[in-house]
Amino acid sequence: MKTFEQWKTYFARDRFATEMGAELIEIAPGRAVVKLCVGPQHLNAHGTVMGGAIFTLADFAFAAASNSHGTIAVASDVHISFVRAAEGGGELIAEAVEISRGRTLAHYDVRVRDEKNRIVALFHGTAFRIGTPLPTDK
Amino acid sequence: MKTFEQWKTYFARDRFATEMGAELIEIAPGRAVVKLCVGPQHLNAHGTVMGGAIFTLADFAFAAASNSHGTIAVASDVHISFVRAAEGGGELIAEAVEISRGRTLAHYDVRVRDEKNRIVALFHGTAFRIGTPLPTDK
Amino acid sequence: MKTFEQWKTYFARDRFATEMGAELIEIAPGRAVVKLCVGPQHLNAHGTVMGGAIFTLADFAFAAASNSHGTIAVASDVHISFVRAAEGGGELIAEAVEISRGRTLAHYDVRVRDEKNRIVALFHGTAFRIGTPLPTDK
Amino acid sequence: MKTFEQWKTYFARDRFATEMGAELIEIAPGRAVVKLCVGPQHLNAHGTVMGGAIFTLADFAFAAASNSHGTIAVASDVHISFVRAAEGGGELIAEAVEISRGRTLAHYDVRVRDEKNRIVALFHGTAFRIGTPLPTDK
Repeated sequence: MKTFEQWKTYFARDRFATEMGAELIEIAPGRAVVKLCVGPQHLNAHGTVMGGAIFTLADFAFAAASNSHGTIAVASDVHISFVRAAEGGGELIAEAVEISRGRTLAHYDVRVRDEKNRIVALFHGTAFRIGTPLPTDK
Repeated sequence: MKTFEQWKTYFARDRFATEMGAELIEIAPGRAVVKLCVGPQHLNAHGTVMGGAIFTLADFAFAAASNSHGTIAVASDVHISFVRAAEGGGELIAEAVEISRGRTLAHYDVRVRDEKNRIVALFHGTAFRIGTPLPTDK
Repeated sequence: MKTFEQWKTYFARDRFATEMGAELIEIAPGRAVVKLCVGPQHLNAHGTVMGGAIFTLADFAFAAASNSHGTIAVASDVHISFVRAAEGGGELIAEAVEISRGRTLAHYDVRVRDEKNRIVALFHGTAFRIGTPLPTDK
Repeated sequence: MKTFEQWKTYFARDRFATEMGAELIEIAPGRAVVKLCVGPQHLNAHGTVMGGAIFTLADFAFAAASNSHGTIAVASDVHISFVRAAEGGGELIAEAVEISRGRTLAHYDVRVRDEKNRIVALFHGTAFRIGTPLPTDK
């Protein structure tokens, strides 16, 4: 198993998520927590955080949780419900939890909350487990 | 109704989508097409386009199509199926089409294709129609 | 508020669910549990419980939970992941829990389990709250 | 390949769908149409067709289309948007169309319409292709 620093290094390769500012906070088998400090670059035309940014944050947590067992898994189907508009200036936290894991498919719930702990979005992801080991860092 | 240039200016406020490189190509009542030239900043740890980038592109087309009638609509529920991994270096096109529109809810299908016209993702979005007019540009 | 017997009588009007054998077991504000004894009439061509029967059971729990506050709510969007095939002869339990509730939309997670407590399906429902009171029984 | 009568016989084993009254109308590789004459047994407590009955009809079309290539496929993830309440007494038609088909996963859109051709529900199904041939009728 990787140390937390090794995981951070590994998931830094998720460039789209990390370059938008998402940060891995916790990772354990079947679980991951990520954080985003919301800036003006994450907003939409209505002045709230764009759905794409919220999804990307949740998807990053989902990727971390579904790859946390050390083998590659990729997203197959995702459903997201946007519950509450998130304002700029705050912080968003996404927590992914594994609900079930079979040989080929695994299922994760991700909840995105704001800094007042209010639910912003509910994300359910189905991962397809390719099963090859994650590349090791040289 | 806005001209195409006015729409482009309006949706440039969707900063998260436009700053990642998404570009509005077409917009008509109930329909929108957007484009992304894929660069290394859109990739994930597996070297393919991250789900968040694909979602954001599709979400941008959905936002444009669902606001194309001149009143504000926001995303309520979205389902996305990732059909094929998209490689770096190419181009992605997302086309949103309105399937039905009621007083409060409206439904859109968005298909994301690569430069070889292969389906990369299937996105279905339900929009909640707030109904207030879009702000006019000064 | 209705008594449990009054709720049972009320939801007996969900004829499609109750005629297939679904039974209301518990109901409280924002929560409901329903049960199905699986018979040959619930099976598909592969000899396992048909997706429609599993969905109907979960949908019945969702309907009960989302109407449990005494005002009418109807399903808007539902996502279901089928996790494990359910065999004939056993029992299925669906438990719906309210995750969030706004003025117009509310969100519920429903888990369907078999008699060995294994997850059979994960259901997420978004309810549109019409807001008129439930009809009272004469 | 089976004749239409052989397909009807085969899918009659989807007992939950056929016993509720769903009827196979058309089947071709990657496509299927099914029909339901709505009766009082399909209604919910609000007097409209229950979500479970609409889902079951769409799921039956999805099953027929995804098994139409002669090998077994089962539902993995489904998203359904309920667009318009369906009244009792009419007829519902569900048409499933294959959008993409890979080695392991395939994707189908199903539209459910009423007898006035109005969209009642939009269903998107992801099928997991097990790949073993369908059993042949003796």
